[in-house]
Amino acid sequence: MKIYDWPTGPYPARVRIALAEKNLQSSVEFVPVNLWKGEHKRLAFLARNYSGTLPVLELDNGICLAECTAITVYLDALAGEPTLTGRTPLEKGVIQMMTKRAEIEMLDAISVYFHHATPGLGPDVEVYQNQEWGLRQRDKALRGMHYFDGVLRKQPFIAGDAFSMADIAVIGGFIFAKAVELPIPQECEALLTWFARMQERPSVRAQLAIVPPKH
Amino acid sequence: MKIYDWPTGPYPARVRIALAEKNLQSSVEFVPVNLWKGEHKRLAFLARNYSGTLPVLELDNGICLAECTAITVYLDALAGEPTLTGRTPLEKGVIQMMTKRAEIEMLDAISVYFHHATPGLGPDVEVYQNQEWGLRQRDKALRGMHYFDGVLRKQPFIAGDAFSMADIAVIGGFIFAKAVELPIPQECEALLTWFARMQERPSVRAQLAIVPPKH
Ligand SMILES: N[C@@H](CCC(=O)N[C@@H](CS)C(=O)NCC(=O)O)C(=O)O
Ligand SMILES: N[C@@H](CCC(=O)N[C@@H](CS)C(=O)NCC(=O)O)C(=O)O
Repeated sequence: MKIYDWPTGPYPARVRIALAEKNLQSSVEFVPVNLWKGEHKRLAFLARNYSGTLPVLELDNGICLAECTAITVYLDALAGEPTLTGRTPLEKGVIQMMTKRAEIEMLDAISVYFHHATPGLGPDVEVYQNQEWGLRQRDKALRGMHYFDGVLRKQPFIAGDAFSMADIAVIGGFIFAKAVELPIPQECEALLTWFARMQERPSVRAQLAIVPPKH
Repeated sequence: MKIYDWPTGPYPARVRIALAEKNLQSSVEFVPVNLWKGEHKRLAFLARNYSGTLPVLELDNGICLAECTAITVYLDALAGEPTLTGRTPLEKGVIQMMTKRAEIEMLDAISVYFHHATPGLGPDVEVYQNQEWGLRQRDKALRGMHYFDGVLRKQPFIAGDAFSMADIAVIGGFIFAKAVELPIPQECEALLTWFARMQERPSVRAQLAIVPPKH
Protein backbone atom coordinates (compact mmCIF):
# COMPACT_ATOMS: atom_id res chain seq x y z
CA MET A 1 0.00 0.00 0.00
CA LYS A 2 1.02 3.61 -0.52
CA ILE A 3 0.09 6.62 1.57
CA TYR A 4 0.09 10.02 -0.11
CA ASP A 5 1.37 12.04 2.75
CA TRP A 6 2.86 15.25 4.02
CA PRO A 7 5.21 14.69 6.96
CA THR A 8 3.94 17.46 9.27
CA GLY A 9 0.30 17.39 8.20
CA PRO A 10 -2.10 16.96 11.15
CA TYR A 11 -4.46 14.75 9.15
CA PRO A 12 -1.76 12.42 7.75
CA ALA A 13 -0.51 12.18 11.35
CA ARG A 14 -3.83 10.57 12.29
CA VAL A 15 -3.24 7.78 9.82
CA ARG A 16 0.40 7.40 10.80
CA ILE A 17 -0.64 7.01 14.44
CA ALA A 18 -3.25 4.42 13.44
CA LEU A 19 -0.66 2.52 11.37
CA ALA A 20 1.78 2.51 14.28
CA GLU A 21 -0.90 1.35 16.73
CA LYS A 22 -1.75 -1.53 14.38
CA ASN A 23 1.91 -2.23 13.69
CA LEU A 24 1.36 -1.84 9.96
CA GLN A 25 3.92 0.86 9.11
CA SER A 26 6.29 -1.50 7.36
CA SER A 27 3.62 -2.52 4.85
CA VAL A 28 3.26 1.07 3.62
CA GLU A 29 5.31 3.24 1.29
CA PHE A 30 4.95 6.97 2.00
CA VAL A 31 4.76 9.27 -1.03
CA PRO A 32 5.11 12.96 -0.16
CA VAL A 33 2.74 15.44 -1.82
CA ASN A 34 3.98 19.00 -1.34
CA LEU A 35 1.10 21.02 0.01
CA TRP A 36 3.08 24.26 -0.06
CA LYS A 37 3.47 23.87 -3.81
CA GLY A 38 -0.22 23.02 -4.19
CA GLU A 39 0.52 19.55 -5.56
CA HIS A 40 -2.70 18.35 -3.91
CA LYS A 41 -4.77 20.59 -6.20
CA ARG A 42 -3.32 19.20 -9.45
CA LEU A 43 -5.26 16.82 -11.64
CA ALA A 44 -3.01 13.80 -10.99
CA PHE A 45 -3.79 14.04 -7.29
CA LEU A 46 -7.46 14.99 -7.68
CA ALA A 47 -7.97 11.77 -9.64
CA ARG A 48 -6.96 9.94 -6.45
CA ASN A 49 -9.06 12.14 -4.15
CA TYR A 50 -11.70 14.44 -5.58
CA SER A 51 -11.61 16.54 -2.42
CA GLY A 52 -7.92 17.36 -2.93
CA THR A 53 -6.76 16.54 0.60
CA LEU A 54 -4.18 14.30 2.22
CA PRO A 55 -3.84 11.55 3.32
CA VAL A 56 -4.86 9.06 0.65
CA LEU A 57 -4.24 5.33 0.97
CA GLU A 58 -3.68 3.63 -2.37
CA LEU A 59 -4.03 -0.14 -2.42
CA ASP A 60 -1.90 -2.35 -4.64
CA ASN A 61 -4.86 -2.76 -7.04
CA GLY A 62 -5.04 1.03 -7.45
CA ILE A 63 -8.13 1.66 -5.33
CA CYS A 64 -7.75 4.91 -3.39
CA LEU A 65 -9.17 5.57 0.04
CA ALA A 66 -9.32 9.17 1.24
CA GLU A 67 -10.60 10.59 4.56
CA CYS A 68 -8.80 9.72 7.78
CA THR A 69 -11.86 8.10 9.29
CA ALA A 70 -12.39 5.85 6.28
CA ILE A 71 -8.71 4.89 6.14
CA THR A 72 -8.67 4.12 9.86
CA VAL A 73 -11.84 2.02 9.64
CA TYR A 74 -10.23 0.08 6.79
CA LEU A 75 -6.93 -0.47 8.60
CA ASP A 76 -8.73 -1.41 11.79
CA ALA A 77 -10.88 -3.98 10.02
CA LEU A 78 -7.76 -5.65 8.60
CA ALA A 79 -7.43 -7.00 12.17
CA GLY A 80 -4.89 -6.80 14.95
CA GLU A 81 -4.92 -5.12 18.34
CA PRO A 82 -5.75 -2.60 19.71
CA THR A 83 -9.18 -2.01 18.24
CA LEU A 84 -9.41 1.63 17.19
CA THR A 85 -13.03 1.72 16.02
CA GLY A 86 -14.81 -0.39 18.67
CA ARG A 87 -16.13 -3.88 19.11
CA THR A 88 -19.80 -3.62 20.14
CA PRO A 89 -22.43 -1.64 18.21
CA LEU A 90 -22.44 1.00 20.94
CA GLU A 91 -18.64 1.33 21.03
CA LYS A 92 -18.58 1.68 17.26
CA GLY A 93 -21.30 4.33 17.32
CA VAL A 94 -19.76 6.37 20.11
CA ILE A 95 -16.29 6.28 18.54
CA GLN A 96 -17.69 7.40 15.17
CA MET A 97 -19.59 10.22 16.86
CA MET A 98 -16.68 11.46 18.93
CA THR A 99 -14.30 11.27 15.97
CA LYS A 100 -16.69 13.33 13.88
CA ARG A 101 -17.19 15.75 16.74
CA ALA A 102 -13.42 16.13 17.11
CA GLU A 103 -13.31 17.10 13.45
CA ILE A 104 -16.29 19.44 13.43
CA GLU A 105 -15.57 21.17 16.73
CA MET A 106 -11.78 21.27 16.73
CA LEU A 107 -9.61 19.83 13.95
CA ASP A 108 -11.57 20.95 10.88
CA ALA A 109 -12.29 24.29 12.55
CA ILE A 110 -8.56 24.91 13.06
CA SER A 111 -7.96 23.88 9.46
CA VAL A 112 -10.45 26.47 8.19
CA TYR A 113 -8.85 29.07 10.45
CA PHE A 114 -5.44 28.22 8.99
CA HIS A 115 -6.56 28.35 5.36
CA HIS A 116 -8.77 31.44 5.72
CA ALA A 117 -7.49 33.70 8.49
CA THR A 118 -3.74 33.14 8.30
CA PRO A 119 -1.46 33.12 5.24
CA GLY A 120 -2.17 29.37 5.13
CA LEU A 121 -0.26 27.62 2.36
CA GLY A 122 0.63 30.95 0.76
CA PRO A 123 -0.99 33.13 -1.91
CA ASP A 124 -0.46 30.72 -4.79
CA VAL A 125 -2.41 27.94 -3.07
CA GLU A 126 -4.95 29.94 -1.03
CA VAL A 127 -6.70 31.49 -4.00
CA TYR A 128 -9.80 32.33 -1.97
CA GLN A 129 -9.87 33.33 1.68
CA ASN A 130 -12.77 34.36 3.89
CA GLN A 131 -11.10 35.84 6.94
CA GLU A 132 -14.24 36.45 8.95
CA TRP A 133 -15.27 32.83 8.56
CA GLY A 134 -11.77 31.68 9.47
CA LEU A 135 -11.80 33.70 12.68
CA ARG A 136 -15.21 32.32 13.68
CA GLN A 137 -13.87 28.82 13.17
CA ARG A 138 -10.89 29.60 15.40
CA ASP A 139 -13.31 30.64 18.16
CA LYS A 140 -15.35 27.50 17.55
CA ALA A 141 -12.19 25.40 17.99
CA LEU A 142 -11.43 27.15 21.28
CA ARG A 143 -14.94 26.35 22.51
CA GLY A 144 -14.43 22.79 21.29
CA MET A 145 -11.32 22.46 23.45
CA HIS A 146 -13.39 23.38 26.49
CA TYR A 147 -16.00 20.84 25.46
CA PHE A 148 -13.41 18.05 25.21
CA ASP A 149 -11.94 19.16 28.51
CA GLY A 150 -15.36 18.58 30.06
CA VAL A 151 -15.55 15.14 28.45
CA LEU A 152 -12.16 14.19 29.89
CA ARG A 153 -13.15 15.31 33.38
CA LYS A 154 -15.60 12.40 33.34
CA GLN A 155 -13.78 9.66 31.45
CA PRO A 156 -10.17 8.73 30.62
CA PHE A 157 -10.45 8.73 26.81
CA ILE A 158 -12.40 10.80 24.30
CA ALA A 159 -14.86 8.00 23.53
CA GLY A 160 -14.96 6.34 26.96
CA ASP A 161 -12.73 3.81 28.68
CA ALA A 162 -10.32 2.91 25.91
CA PHE A 163 -7.97 4.57 23.44
CA SER A 164 -9.61 4.91 20.00
CA MET A 165 -9.76 6.69 16.68
CA ALA A 166 -11.50 9.55 18.50
CA ASP A 167 -8.43 10.21 20.66
CA ILE A 168 -6.34 10.21 17.51
CA ALA A 169 -8.61 12.84 15.95
CA VAL A 170 -8.21 15.15 18.95
CA ILE A 171 -4.45 14.56 18.86
CA GLY A 172 -4.63 15.75 15.23
CA GLY A 173 -6.29 18.87 16.62
CA PHE A 174 -3.40 19.40 19.04
CA ILE A 175 -0.87 19.00 16.22
CA PHE A 176 -2.72 21.54 14.08
CA ALA A 177 -3.19 23.94 17.03
CA LYS A 178 0.54 23.89 17.64
CA ALA A 179 1.32 24.47 13.96
CA VAL A 180 -0.91 27.56 13.85
CA GLU A 181 0.23 28.74 17.30
CA LEU A 182 -3.19 28.50 18.85
CA PRO A 183 -2.50 27.63 22.48
CA ILE A 184 -4.74 25.14 24.29
CA PRO A 185 -6.31 27.21 27.11
CA GLN A 186 -4.50 26.65 30.45
CA GLU A 187 -7.78 26.05 32.25
CA CYS A 188 -8.43 22.96 30.12
CA GLU A 189 -6.56 20.91 32.69
CA ALA A 190 -8.14 17.56 31.99
CA LEU A 191 -7.50 17.99 28.27
CA LEU A 192 -3.86 18.92 28.87
CA THR A 193 -3.36 16.02 31.29
CA TRP A 194 -4.90 13.64 28.78
CA PHE A 195 -2.55 14.95 26.07
CA ALA A 196 0.47 14.40 28.30
CA ARG A 197 -0.73 10.84 28.81
CA MET A 198 -1.24 10.36 25.06
CA GLN A 199 2.40 11.26 24.49
CA GLU A 200 3.42 8.20 26.48
CA ARG A 201 2.25 6.14 23.50
CA PRO A 202 5.15 5.57 21.06
CA SER A 203 2.74 6.00 18.11
CA VAL A 204 1.92 9.54 19.24
CA ARG A 205 5.40 10.50 20.38
CA ALA A 206 6.82 9.62 16.98
CA GLN A 207 4.46 12.07 15.26
CA LEU A 208 5.22 14.91 17.63
CA ALA A 209 8.95 14.44 17.08
CA ILE A 210 8.78 15.11 13.34
CA VAL A 211 10.78 18.16 12.33
CA PRO A 212 9.02 20.29 9.68
CA PRO A 213 10.70 19.89 6.29
CA LYS A 214 11.65 23.01 4.34
CA HIS A 215 8.77 24.11 2.09
CA MET B 1 -34.90 4.13 21.75
CA LYS B 2 -35.85 7.72 20.97
CA ILE B 3 -34.90 9.80 17.96
CA TYR B 4 -34.85 13.56 18.34
CA ASP B 5 -36.10 14.47 14.96
CA TRP B 6 -37.56 17.05 12.63
CA PRO B 7 -39.94 15.53 10.07
CA THR B 8 -38.64 17.30 6.97
CA GLY B 9 -34.98 17.58 7.98
CA PRO B 10 -32.62 16.11 5.37
CA TYR B 11 -30.27 14.70 8.03
CA PRO B 12 -32.99 13.05 10.14
CA ALA B 13 -34.25 11.58 6.85
CA ARG B 14 -30.96 9.70 6.54
CA VAL B 15 -31.58 7.95 9.83
CA ARG B 16 -35.23 7.30 9.05
CA ILE B 17 -34.20 5.66 5.77
CA ALA B 18 -31.63 3.55 7.61
CA LEU B 19 -34.22 2.51 10.22
CA ALA B 20 -36.66 1.52 7.49
CA GLU B 21 -34.01 -0.45 5.60
CA LYS B 22 -33.20 -2.34 8.81
CA ASN B 23 -36.86 -2.73 9.70
CA LEU B 24 -36.31 -1.06 13.06
CA GLN B 25 -38.83 1.81 12.90
CA SER B 26 -41.22 0.23 15.36
CA SER B 27 -38.55 0.14 18.08
CA VAL B 28 -38.14 3.92 17.97
CA GLU B 29 -40.16 6.79 19.38
CA PHE B 30 -39.76 10.03 17.42
CA VAL B 31 -39.52 13.24 19.45
CA PRO B 32 -39.83 16.39 17.35
CA VAL B 33 -37.43 19.27 18.03
CA ASN B 34 -38.63 22.45 16.36
CA LEU B 35 -35.72 23.84 14.36
CA TRP B 36 -37.66 26.93 13.33
CA LYS B 37 -38.05 27.88 16.96
CA GLY B 38 -34.37 27.16 17.62
CA GLU B 39 -35.15 24.40 20.12
CA HIS B 40 -31.93 22.64 18.99
CA LYS B 41 -29.85 25.53 20.35
CA ARG B 42 -31.29 25.39 23.88
CA LEU B 43 -29.37 23.89 26.78
CA ALA B 44 -31.66 20.87 27.21
CA PHE B 45 -30.90 19.79 23.66
CA LEU B 46 -27.23 20.78 23.69
CA ALA B 47 -26.76 18.43 26.66
CA ARG B 48 -27.79 15.63 24.31
CA ASN B 49 -25.68 16.85 21.39
CA TYR B 50 -23.01 19.48 21.93
CA SER B 51 -23.08 20.34 18.22
CA GLY B 52 -26.75 21.32 18.41
CA THR B 53 -27.93 19.34 15.40
CA LEU B 54 -30.53 16.70 14.66
CA PRO B 55 -30.92 13.76 14.60
CA VAL B 56 -29.92 12.34 17.97
CA LEU B 57 -30.58 8.75 18.97
CA GLU B 58 -31.16 8.33 22.72
CA LEU B 59 -30.84 4.82 24.07
CA ASP B 60 -32.99 3.52 26.93
CA ASN B 61 -30.03 3.96 29.31
CA GLY B 62 -29.80 7.65 28.38
CA ILE B 63 -26.71 7.47 26.17
CA CYS B 64 -27.07 9.84 23.22
CA LEU B 65 -25.65 9.23 19.77
CA ALA B 66 -25.46 12.18 17.39
CA GLU B 67 -24.17 12.32 13.79
CA CYS B 68 -26.00 10.43 11.06
CA THR B 69 -22.96 8.34 10.22
CA ALA B 70 -22.45 7.28 13.84
CA ILE B 71 -26.14 6.46 14.31
CA THR B 72 -26.19 4.45 11.08
CA VAL B 73 -23.05 2.52 12.03
CA TYR B 74 -24.67 1.71 15.38
CA LEU B 75 -27.98 0.60 13.87
CA ASP B 76 -26.21 -1.41 11.20
CA ALA B 77 -24.08 -3.22 13.77
CA LEU B 78 -27.22 -4.26 15.68
CA ALA B 79 -27.57 -6.77 12.82
CA GLY B 80 -30.09 -7.51 10.12
CA GLU B 81 -30.06 -7.15 6.37
CA PRO B 82 -29.24 -5.27 4.21
CA THR B 83 -25.79 -4.24 5.38
CA LEU B 84 -25.51 -0.47 5.08
CA THR B 85 -21.88 -0.02 6.14
CA GLY B 86 -20.13 -2.92 4.41
CA ARG B 87 -18.85 -6.36 5.24
CA THR B 88 -15.19 -6.53 4.18
CA PRO B 89 -12.53 -4.04 5.30
CA LEU B 90 -12.49 -2.52 1.82
CA GLU B 91 -16.28 -2.20 1.61
CA LYS B 92 -16.34 -0.55 5.03
CA GLY B 93 -13.59 1.89 4.05
CA VAL B 94 -15.10 2.83 0.70
CA ILE B 95 -18.57 3.33 2.21
CA GLN B 96 -17.16 5.55 4.96
CA MET B 97 -15.22 7.58 2.40
CA MET B 98 -18.12 8.05 0.03
CA THR B 99 -20.50 8.95 2.87
CA LYS B 100 -18.09 11.58 4.11
CA ARG B 101 -17.55 12.84 0.59
CA ALA B 102 -21.32 13.11 0.08
CA GLU B 103 -21.41 15.29 3.17
CA ILE B 104 -18.41 17.46 2.37
CA GLU B 105 -19.11 17.93 -1.32
CA MET B 106 -22.91 18.07 -1.37
CA LEU B 107 -25.09 17.72 1.74
CA ASP B 108 -23.10 19.82 4.24
CA ALA B 109 -22.34 22.36 1.51
CA ILE B 110 -26.06 22.80 0.80
CA SER B 111 -26.67 23.11 4.53
CA VAL B 112 -24.14 25.95 4.82
CA TYR B 113 -25.71 27.62 1.79
CA PHE B 114 -29.14 27.37 3.45
CA HIS B 115 -27.99 28.76 6.80
CA HIS B 116 -25.75 31.49 5.39
CA ALA B 117 -27.00 32.66 2.01
CA THR B 118 -30.77 32.26 2.37
CA PRO B 119 -33.04 33.32 5.26
CA GLY B 120 -32.38 29.84 6.66
CA LEU B 121 -34.29 29.19 9.87
CA GLY B 122 -35.14 32.88 10.21
CA PRO B 123 -33.47 35.83 11.94
CA ASP B 124 -34.03 34.57 15.49
CA VAL B 125 -32.11 31.35 14.83
CA GLU B 126 -29.57 32.47 12.23
CA VAL B 127 -27.80 34.95 14.48
CA TYR B 128 -24.68 34.99 12.29
CA GLN B 129 -24.61 34.64 8.52
CA ASN B 130 -21.71 34.81 6.09
CA GLN B 131 -23.35 35.15 2.73
CA GLU B 132 -20.21 34.99 0.63
CA TRP B 133 -19.24 31.71 2.27
CA GLY B 134 -22.76 30.37 1.80
CA LEU B 135 -22.71 31.12 -1.91
CA ARG B 136 -19.32 29.44 -2.33
CA GLN B 137 -20.71 26.35 -0.66
CA ARG B 138 -23.67 26.34 -3.01
CA ASP B 139 -21.26 26.34 -5.96
CA LYS B 140 -19.25 23.58 -4.30
CA ALA B 141 -22.43 21.50 -3.98
CA LEU B 142 -23.18 21.99 -7.68
CA ARG B 143 -19.68 20.77 -8.54
CA GLY B 144 -20.25 17.87 -6.15
CA MET B 145 -23.37 16.85 -8.06
CA HIS B 146 -21.29 16.61 -11.22
CA TYR B 147 -18.70 14.57 -9.38
CA PHE B 148 -21.33 12.07 -8.17
CA ASP B 149 -22.80 11.98 -11.65
CA GLY B 150 -19.39 10.85 -12.87
CA VAL B 151 -19.23 8.19 -10.18
CA LEU B 152 -22.64 6.84 -11.20
CA ARG B 153 -21.64 6.66 -14.85
CA LYS B 154 -19.23 3.92 -13.80
CA GLN B 155 -21.10 2.04 -11.07
CA PRO B 156 -24.71 1.51 -9.97
CA PHE B 157 -24.40 2.82 -6.41
CA ILE B 158 -22.43 5.62 -4.76
CA ALA B 159 -19.99 3.23 -3.07
CA GLY B 160 -19.92 0.49 -5.70
CA ASP B 161 -22.19 -2.47 -6.45
CA ALA B 162 -24.61 -2.31 -3.54
CA PHE B 163 -26.92 0.12 -1.80
CA SER B 164 -25.27 1.62 1.30
CA MET B 165 -25.10 4.46 3.79
CA ALA B 166 -23.33 6.48 1.09
CA ASP B 167 -26.39 6.38 -1.17
CA ILE B 168 -28.48 7.51 1.78
CA ALA B 169 -26.17 10.49 2.31
CA VAL B 170 -26.55 11.62 -1.30
CA ILE B 171 -30.32 11.14 -1.02
CA GLY B 172 -30.10 13.52 1.96
CA GLY B 173 -28.42 15.93 -0.42
CA PHE B 174 -31.31 15.62 -2.87
CA ILE B 175 -33.83 16.26 -0.10
CA PHE B 176 -31.95 19.37 1.02
CA ALA B 177 -31.46 20.58 -2.58
CA LYS B 178 -35.20 20.36 -3.14
CA ALA B 179 -35.96 22.20 0.11
CA VAL B 180 -33.68 25.10 -0.87
CA GLU B 181 -34.83 25.01 -4.51
CA LEU B 182 -31.40 24.21 -5.88
CA PRO B 183 -32.12 22.14 -8.98
CA ILE B 184 -29.92 19.15 -9.81
CA PRO B 185 -28.33 20.07 -13.17
CA GLN B 186 -30.15 18.41 -16.10
CA GLU B 187 -26.90 17.18 -17.57
CA CYS B 188 -26.27 15.02 -14.49
CA GLU B 189 -28.16 12.23 -16.20
CA ALA B 190 -26.62 9.31 -14.36
CA LEU B 191 -27.26 11.02 -11.03
CA LEU B 192 -30.89 11.73 -11.90
CA THR B 193 -31.44 8.18 -13.17
CA TRP B 194 -29.92 6.80 -9.99
CA PHE B 195 -32.23 9.01 -7.90
CA ALA B 196 -35.27 7.75 -9.80
CA ARG B 197 -34.10 4.22 -9.04
CA MET B 198 -33.59 5.07 -5.36
CA GLN B 199 -37.22 6.15 -5.13
CA GLU B 200 -38.29 2.61 -5.94
CA ARG B 201 -37.16 1.73 -2.42
CA PRO B 202 -40.03 2.07 0.06
CA SER B 203 -37.61 3.48 2.68
CA VAL B 204 -36.74 6.38 0.38
CA ARG B 205 -40.21 6.93 -1.04
CA ALA B 206 -41.65 7.31 2.46
CA GLN B 207 -39.25 10.18 3.22
CA LEU B 208 -39.99 12.01 0.00
CA ALA B 209 -43.72 11.81 0.68
CA ILE B 210 -43.53 13.76 3.95
CA VAL B 211 -45.47 17.00 3.82
CA PRO B 212 -43.68 19.89 5.57
CA PRO B 213 -45.34 20.73 8.89
CA LYS B 214 -46.22 24.33 9.61
CA HIS B 215 -43.31 26.13 11.30
N1 LIG C 1 -11.51 15.42 5.71
C1 LIG C 1 -10.14 15.13 5.37
C2 LIG C 1 -9.28 16.37 5.61
C3 LIG C 1 -7.83 16.19 5.28
C4 LIG C 1 -7.06 17.49 5.19
O1 LIG C 1 -7.62 18.59 5.25
N2 LIG C 1 -5.74 17.35 5.00
C5 LIG C 1 -4.85 18.49 4.87
C6 LIG C 1 -3.41 18.08 5.07
S1 LIG C 1 -2.97 18.01 6.75
C7 LIG C 1 -4.92 19.01 3.46
O2 LIG C 1 -4.85 18.24 2.53
N3 LIG C 1 -5.03 20.33 3.31
C8 LIG C 1 -4.89 20.97 2.07
C9 LIG C 1 -6.03 21.83 1.70
O3 LIG C 1 -7.11 21.71 2.32
O4 LIG C 1 -5.83 22.63 0.78
C10 LIG C 1 -9.64 13.93 6.16
O5 LIG C 1 -10.17 13.66 7.25
O6 LIG C 1 -8.75 13.19 5.68
N1 LIG D 1 -23.21 16.45 11.01
C1 LIG D 1 -24.59 16.31 11.42
C2 LIG D 1 -25.41 17.38 10.77
C3 LIG D 1 -26.87 17.35 11.16
C4 LIG D 1 -27.64 18.62 10.77
O1 LIG D 1 -27.06 19.62 10.33
N2 LIG D 1 -28.97 18.58 10.99
C5 LIG D 1 -29.82 19.70 10.72
C6 LIG D 1 -31.28 19.26 10.68
S1 LIG D 1 -31.72 18.62 9.12
C7 LIG D 1 -29.76 20.68 11.86
O2 LIG D 1 -29.83 20.27 13.01
N3 LIG D 1 -29.63 21.96 11.54
C8 LIG D 1 -29.77 23.00 12.47
C9 LIG D 1 -28.59 23.93 12.52
O3 LIG D 1 -27.51 23.59 11.99
O4 LIG D 1 -28.77 25.00 13.11
C10 LIG D 1 -25.09 14.91 11.11
O5 LIG D 1 -24.58 14.27 10.19
O6 LIG D 1 -25.99 14.40 11.81
